[in-house]
Amino acid sequence: MRARHIKNANDTIIASPFFIENPEKYKGLWHTVFNNNNPIFIEIGMGKGKFIYEMSQKYPDINFIGIERFDSIMLRSVQKFTDKSQKNIRLLKIDACILTDVFEKNEIDRIYLNFSDPWPKKGHAKRRLTNKIFLEKYQLILKEKGEIHFKTDNIHLFEYSLESMNNYPMLLKNISLDLHHSDFQDNIMTEYEEKFSKNGPIYRLEATFKEDNNETHNC
Amino acid sequence: MRARHIKNANDTIIASPFFIENPEKYKGLWHTVFNNNNPIFIEIGMGKGKFIYEMSQKYPDINFIGIERFDSIMLRSVQKFTDKSQKNIRLLKIDACILTDVFEKNEIDRIYLNFSDPWPKKGHAKRRLTNKIFLEKYQLILKEKGEIHFKTDNIHLFEYSLESMNNYPMLLKNISLDLHHSDFQDNIMTEYEEKFSKNGPIYRLEATFKEDNNETHNC
Repeated sequence: MRARHIKNANDTIIASPFFIENPEKYKGLWHTVFNNNNPIFIEIGMGKGKFIYEMSQKYPDINFIGIERFDSIMLRSVQKFTDKSQKNIRLLKIDACILTDVFEKNEIDRIYLNFSDPWPKKGHAKRRLTNKIFLEKYQLILKEKGEIHFKTDNIHLFEYSLESMNNYPMLLKNISLDLHHSDFQDNIMTEYEEKFSKNGPIYRLEATFKEDNNETHNC
Repeated sequence: MRARHIKNANDTIIASPFFIENPEKYKGLWHTVFNNNNPIFIEIGMGKGKFIYEMSQKYPDINFIGIERFDSIMLRSVQKFTDKSQKNIRLLKIDACILTDVFEKNEIDRIYLNFSDPWPKKGHAKRRLTNKIFLEKYQLILKEKGEIHFKTDNIHLFEYSLESMNNYPMLLKNISLDLHHSDFQDNIMTEYEEKFSKNGPIYRLEATFKEDNNETHNC
């Protein structure tokens, strides 16, 4: 999602009870933030936050962390999250490159990637959130058998992601090449998905890692 | 492709110079049939044979073997293959279940699967040509790094095949979720593809096996 500069966005974000500043200090301690031992699901690139907000309301026994790197977009999430009694959601303004500075090994139960930036130029492939560099980070922070749930309307990003995940190697399941006409029951749409899904199919997959990993490379 | 019974089809098929009866006797000896050491590409379920016939004309230094199990469909291929001077193509009327009786380990360089029967019912999944049972047979007869090239218009067969091949495990590459609008240059269309591709996208992938295998199970 393209970011616009919005004056004083940062002040509003910091004032939100859902926003966590300096999240590195909670590495390995996220259960203390939520004050329970429920599973932790994160969304990387949450955009305006509709998906993770609705998920957090639908699944009160899961802890959700929404991640976004742009002020202007994070601001929209913060403004949407009005029910201050809700305890199972937090928002982080970080780049996915530093995921392993913010989360401990095996700390996360599931990762959502929704309509990630396709970075269509070949030279930008390393920036795609399903590139090997990011998969290594996900593998490190995910629990064993922790799943990545990925959906996109971008045909070339999905083709790329199938190959990247297969090659890693990851185990793929529940692949859908037309989510909105499939029998998948639990789809919560993002803002983007509601707006643009009439233009063509939504692609979706679930993936797990086959083996353990201790290696990461810089973005 | 649905098969109709055609009277005397068998006589016409047997009379074709391209048709090989009792192909089991050439197991391990296919190079003697072609009288050269060129690579051997096979198409399993060649339908009316347009794809493999055009391929054999385009690539004279490759040997092609078309496989079809129905008399009535094989008859259509035999009638199409009129240039009797052509040396690099043979036709076999066998079921894919007996591939390993007809071809020796590592005898084949590439396998084409084009618009294979989708067998849509869950209970028929074992009959799909990308089911594990068939992948085992392909792995056995294919040379190391030998490729499977698979295309279909059936969305659910493609979803199934992606998962089946990924899970096997196979390495996937050059995945296209809309072949006719991709930059793939070398597409030779089957009869079916020409007729039905206006109805929706053609899906395509290439796959290789990651490791060696000596096991097969009965269909």
